[in-house]
Amino acid sequence: MKINQFATIPTNFDQQVKELINIRFIDENSLSDNPIQLFRRLLQKTFINMTGESDLNEKLSTYQANLESDLKTYLDENSELDINVFYNVSLQLLEFNPDVDFTFSKPLEAMKTIQLKIVDHQSQYLSTNELISAWYWLLTTHNKFGQMFIDKLASQGYFVPFYNLDNYLYFNGKSMPVFDPNEAIREIVYVESNQDSDLDGKLDLLKVEIIRPKTSQKVPTLYTASPYNQGTNDETGDKLMHNVNIPLAHKEPTETSYEDIEYKVTDAKLPAPRKINGQTDIATQTFSRESSYTMNDYFLARGFAVAYSAGIGTKDSDGFRTTGDKEETISTIATIEWLAGNRVAFTNRTDNIAIEANWSNHKVAMTGRSYLGTLATAAATTGVEGLETIISEAAISSWYDYYRENGLVIAPGGFPGEDADVLAEETFSRRLQPGDFLKIKNNWENQLQSITDGQDRLTGNYNEFWDARNYRKDLKNIKADVFMVHGLNDWNVKPTQVEKLYQGLNQLGIKSKLILHQGEHIYINNFQSFDYTDIINLWLSNKLLEQQNNAQEVLPPVIIQDNVKPETWNKFDSWASDKNEIKNFYLQPDKLSSEKSSEVLSFNDQLPSEKFDFYTKNIATWQNDLINSGSNYNNRLVFKTDPLKEDLVIDGNVNISLEVSSSENVGLISAQLMDYGEARRLNITPSLIAKNRLSGAYNWREDDLREFTLGKTAKYKMITKGHINLQNRKNSFKNDELNAGKRYQISLQLQPTMYRIPKGRQLGLVIYATDFGMTVRGNQDITYSISLNNSSISIPIHK
Amino acid sequence: MKINQFATIPTNFDQQVKELINIRFIDENSLSDNPIQLFRRLLQKTFINMTGESDLNEKLSTYQANLESDLKTYLDENSELDINVFYNVSLQLLEFNPDVDFTFSKPLEAMKTIQLKIVDHQSQYLSTNELISAWYWLLTTHNKFGQMFIDKLASQGYFVPFYNLDNYLYFNGKSMPVFDPNEAIREIVYVESNQDSDLDGKLDLLKVEIIRPKTSQKVPTLYTASPYNQGTNDETGDKLMHNVNIPLAHKEPTETSYEDIEYKVTDAKLPAPRKINGQTDIATQTFSRESSYTMNDYFLARGFAVAYSAGIGTKDSDGFRTTGDKEETISTIATIEWLAGNRVAFTNRTDNIAIEANWSNHKVAMTGRSYLGTLATAAATTGVEGLETIISEAAISSWYDYYRENGLVIAPGGFPGEDADVLAEETFSRRLQPGDFLKIKNNWENQLQSITDGQDRLTGNYNEFWDARNYRKDLKNIKADVFMVHGLNDWNVKPTQVEKLYQGLNQLGIKSKLILHQGEHIYINNFQSFDYTDIINLWLSNKLLEQQNNAQEVLPPVIIQDNVKPETWNKFDSWASDKNEIKNFYLQPDKLSSEKSSEVLSFNDQLPSEKFDFYTKNIATWQNDLINSGSNYNNRLVFKTDPLKEDLVIDGNVNISLEVSSSENVGLISAQLMDYGEARRLNITPSLIAKNRLSGAYNWREDDLREFTLGKTAKYKMITKGHINLQNRKNSFKNDELNAGKRYQISLQLQPTMYRIPKGRQLGLVIYATDFGMTVRGNQDITYSISLNNSSISIPIHK
Repeated sequence: MKINQFATIPTNFDQQVKELINIRFIDENSLSDNPIQLFRRLLQKTFINMTGESDLNEKLSTYQANLESDLKTYLDENSELDINVFYNVSLQLLEFNPDVDFTFSKPLEAMKTIQLKIVDHQSQYLSTNELISAWYWLLTTHNKFGQMFIDKLASQGYFVPFYNLDNYLYFNGKSMPVFDPNEAIREIVYVESNQDSDLDGKLDLLKVEIIRPKTSQKVPTLYTASPYNQGTNDETGDKLMHNVNIPLAHKEPTETSYEDIEYKVTDAKLPAPRKINGQTDIATQTFSRESSYTMNDYFLARGFAVAYSAGIGTKDSDGFRTTGDKEETISTIATIEWLAGNRVAFTNRTDNIAIEANWSNHKVAMTGRSYLGTLATAAATTGVEGLETIISEAAISSWYDYYRENGLVIAPGGFPGEDADVLAEETFSRRLQPGDFLKIKNNWENQLQSITDGQDRLTGNYNEFWDARNYRKDLKNIKADVFMVHGLNDWNVKPTQVEKLYQGLNQLGIKSKLILHQGEHIYINNFQSFDYTDIINLWLSNKLLEQQNNAQEVLPPVIIQDNVKPETWNKFDSWASDKNEIKNFYLQPDKLSSEKSSEVLSFNDQLPSEKFDFYTKNIATWQNDLINSGSNYNNRLVFKTDPLKEDLVIDGNVNISLEVSSSENVGLISAQLMDYGEARRLNITPSLIAKNRLSGAYNWREDDLREFTLGKTAKYKMITKGHINLQNRKNSFKNDELNAGKRYQISLQLQPTMYRIPKGRQLGLVIYATDFGMTVRGNQDITYSISLNNSSISIPIHK
Repeated sequence: MKINQFATIPTNFDQQVKELINIRFIDENSLSDNPIQLFRRLLQKTFINMTGESDLNEKLSTYQANLESDLKTYLDENSELDINVFYNVSLQLLEFNPDVDFTFSKPLEAMKTIQLKIVDHQSQYLSTNELISAWYWLLTTHNKFGQMFIDKLASQGYFVPFYNLDNYLYFNGKSMPVFDPNEAIREIVYVESNQDSDLDGKLDLLKVEIIRPKTSQKVPTLYTASPYNQGTNDETGDKLMHNVNIPLAHKEPTETSYEDIEYKVTDAKLPAPRKINGQTDIATQTFSRESSYTMNDYFLARGFAVAYSAGIGTKDSDGFRTTGDKEETISTIATIEWLAGNRVAFTNRTDNIAIEANWSNHKVAMTGRSYLGTLATAAATTGVEGLETIISEAAISSWYDYYRENGLVIAPGGFPGEDADVLAEETFSRRLQPGDFLKIKNNWENQLQSITDGQDRLTGNYNEFWDARNYRKDLKNIKADVFMVHGLNDWNVKPTQVEKLYQGLNQLGIKSKLILHQGEHIYINNFQSFDYTDIINLWLSNKLLEQQNNAQEVLPPVIIQDNVKPETWNKFDSWASDKNEIKNFYLQPDKLSSEKSSEVLSFNDQLPSEKFDFYTKNIATWQNDLINSGSNYNNRLVFKTDPLKEDLVIDGNVNISLEVSSSENVGLISAQLMDYGEARRLNITPSLIAKNRLSGAYNWREDDLREFTLGKTAKYKMITKGHINLQNRKNSFKNDELNAGKRYQISLQLQPTMYRIPKGRQLGLVIYATDFGMTVRGNQDITYSISLNNSSISIPIHK
């Protein structure tokens, strides 16, 4: 097994001593202890669940020091501390298993294999100073179950005696859990937002749930804007799902320019703010359990307040859902403005008693995945004061790329028929309070209809509706530091969302960090092999608590999980760089080759109706039949390279150039890039390693430990994919002519990736039309022909 | 959706008033309130997360009273309380959804459909007394998410003001969470057991972890004996897994009688007890987080201590693992003896300072599933003082029936190659403390070898080793009330384990309760449709706290989940009664019929080696091919009835009588009973409904909400199965002769069940030999012939 730690910061000996004294592992006298005495004392402080000398001796005797003796015996009988003994004991403290992970004869070898830090040392026997340093590094080292040793001790109660200090404590640049999370204050406020999104003549009041440490210190806030947070209308949303078993429609050619469909902000006339009737520090409403993100739970004990707001159109708030437009952004930043002291909030919706966030240090970070990360991105593009950083995970940067692609309606993977209106209804949790909903039912139906009209499923084109939901237009406004996380196998919020954001920030010279993992649409804060939580702690201690820990310099610009080797995370200077070399392959019958072919290959998109019906209900089987070149699925073309002589590392956007004709005046082309060859590959859903194993503090909420593990042997894996409407060859807002039978040159950019195909395997390309999981499924009798002579694929190669 | 509540006890009006005053919903003056005033006041007490009058009004206006108005408006404008308004509001309080679960025009209809209690009432308008009674029942009613309304309020903090009362509080016969679980005391003691299982010349010390309410009251204890609790050696255990790809061996005929293999207790000479050096009330060791059963977590806040002990051979304890023999039983009851004041425990393993459980009321219940429930059963058969009841879930009652069947080695489903020795090694967590293990390594290897020898995989016969692990021999000693829970689709610990225990108790006239569900090897304390946790609360409040709640009379003797209709749990007087009618079917080619046939049918058990290898690695595929009568799997015989004209309800043990010959002098017969017919049937693994939704107290540990849901349409389902060695026709300890080619009459009892086959489907029987999931797999060239004339199947029919 391998542990990957990026958040350990270089620390000199004097600083180590200072920090160890601060967290009470040593005192000034320790420097003159002999190593055996000191080691015993350090261990005593480690075994916090016992009081007596006998208890300690019993505990010491359960550890093995070396091949011959237990630790108590060793400490009793030796006057020098063998470094092998230190690391044998360390590995046991870190919960590694001598039957599985290491042997008592070679602990240093195991430390290296597992990638754990070994102290610099002069000889086989540790000096007192070396032991102090070794102990420092041990405390920062991850154990077998996803936590730094100091955090494991924290979950056992190590910092409980620190609770009454009422002050922050840092170790190796990261904030420690010295605030009792069970004493946290929970309060509800109603922020008066700068909008009237339900047009009721009053500014929208938006509920915010705050949970914050009980302390006299001013604290920063982790703010998660989650439209799901107050409940969802799953059944009602499901009823709105659009039928995707409809034909692709011909579009009349147009000469639309971007200017024609550009969204321009117009200033609406707003109602007057409420008259403030009084001022208070004390909230009148509280809550018992917020719907929390486990990473926020971890930070609460570390001196961070956490705020949740679901925004316009959600339970206990005013307004209507809009699915990502400017109104939702205004709703999102209202909370930040209040936290930074720049906006009014009230204790309830009636009395107009204003309540200040007088506990706030006016520094805010936004956290959360998917829609939550999307709103973080949206908020950042306003440049709102107080927002110091966003950690946007699996976030949308333009809603068109979520529900559309190149003039096609393209569903997020797993949700055929979903669209902006469906999501608006699903998150419209005001419906969950029937007494409230009763009064706004008709207006809500009108609002929903306007979203349905605006999203335009008929053409699938980019239009003003989508331009209003494209945050990448406003990257230049960003003042917050942007930390991005995305899964390279996320077919819900697809990788292009993060890639275009990342490239846009780079072009503007805005500093950012990027982590790409091999998973799908998931969180990564509970993994065994990767210190994500520590990384974010280092980052936030720096950004929100002004801890001078060099987070910006220590953390690499880009970290990407390897797709071949488990438990391997590599650092890079960049991703999908335009300086990458391009390698071209030409299409030959069944082959990807360096030679051109003059043949024309065809496939028909229509299936017998029984088979078609089956696939609509069994999309995984369809996907399997599609890419299995040995299956009797004929409605596609498969091209493969010879087995690769060297590893091929794809880094960025693969482009496909095809000369193609459709037998009708409508048509679409889909493509999947493949890795062919029998192998065990990483599962894209992490496996459960240990339920409830992780807790960020003593007697506090728990999280499951997970890890990406190798799946069963399989013959292929889809690397990336893309889709294009043959009537959107130029761009996604202008309709091109399409004459039946006529050949056109098209260019299709697939979703970006970073993917190593090991030598011996084959790179493959599957060209098809209907994508049962994503496109409309008209089962139309259309024959597509590809002229191979003008068809090729270009692969960006990582150097 | 339907809710099934069995634990609501009949309560008269005076008692309702008394209890409502006790839990502070009303006071004496409430009886003279008008219904509108009183309803408002009850709701105010319900909305505990707010303080002001405006907050309450805001909250009231979010509820809908009837088709026209919200609740605030209704209460303001009406002087009488319409029962429809009361139940419209109730359904909202219970979190049912008006878009999905009910309509505001007909709330009483929804209450009936969901199976919720409606108050007796005289007219459309509730009197004050009727409202009080209606509110009482509402508090006992389950909401949509698996909790009584009063328990939901508890999780929101309702009982926090009761924490300082330092006394028990009951509502509707069940103990309420009025003890702060976050203030619970955690301590470790070492019980001196009456054994020296590792033969080190000292009585074994066994670690017990106790977590108990901080209270001046004497409290009862829920004790969970879990060998897994201190960690397991998964990798080391895996290495011991036995090869099952070996041929079935011929056994020399014997005339063994039961007396020859009967296990008789011999009294071992034991070391002297430790000399007690002192006495204390204060433990010197504590712990931060026990490995807990979520049901125990729920009870902690309700005034129950919880004790966990892993027993002999586990981390921090002495002794060796034995997998279920008398030594393990002695180890298990040592904790109970200490809790009942009849045994010594020490604060640590060195100082011999005795510590009494002076907080204990000397009443103990054992809880837990699988091995944990097994040890509860084992403990009960000793009649140990203090053990008032056991809740044994999915428990083994005889270890032979776990690892063997009718003279065959039969693996628990999913674990081919596991045996008593493998389990001993897996649970031998002393290995996890290398300093301890170092000193006992050789002795442990000897101990393990003696288990391997005793279990005898060669013959698969019942012998002295297994007789020593058959708790059913000692049922007559039981003094505790026995509450049993088992899954009818549990192929790990199979249903015969509970059936033989249940019948044995019945024969002895020992009172018991039995719940059978449609799941596999799972817990059922977190379901949406079934009030298991309330049932156990009622039961334990009665058994351990002497609450006179008529638990014995209110709870039905047998509850069985329906296998056809979701969310349906039925009560019965008995299960698998010997008074059931028997229906016979005879075997004809492809058919089960009322007519005999004179044909002889044969099948060969051997597969081509590639197919054989594939099935060894893909057991689910093998099972599917085996039972799919349309597959080209020829190594079995399939018999089916005509489509049934009426529902057939199988209740108990199906028996198969066959005249069979083997072409060799070895052989085995396996049989599966089938339900053939296209249908959606219940999944045997419950589905996740809401993560972390359940909490038994405010700010306390959480559990996921689950429910059995319907799976995809399938053509068949296995109902039950069985296996027999043709050389164990008479019993499982005597080897019968078996001549190649000679016909023998055998009788095979399948695992007991309760299963409804709806009319129109077909009852099926599959006769085969090698069971890839359970038997040895020798891939031997053996042909089996069945003479249909003397072959039949007898089905016990539920009347």
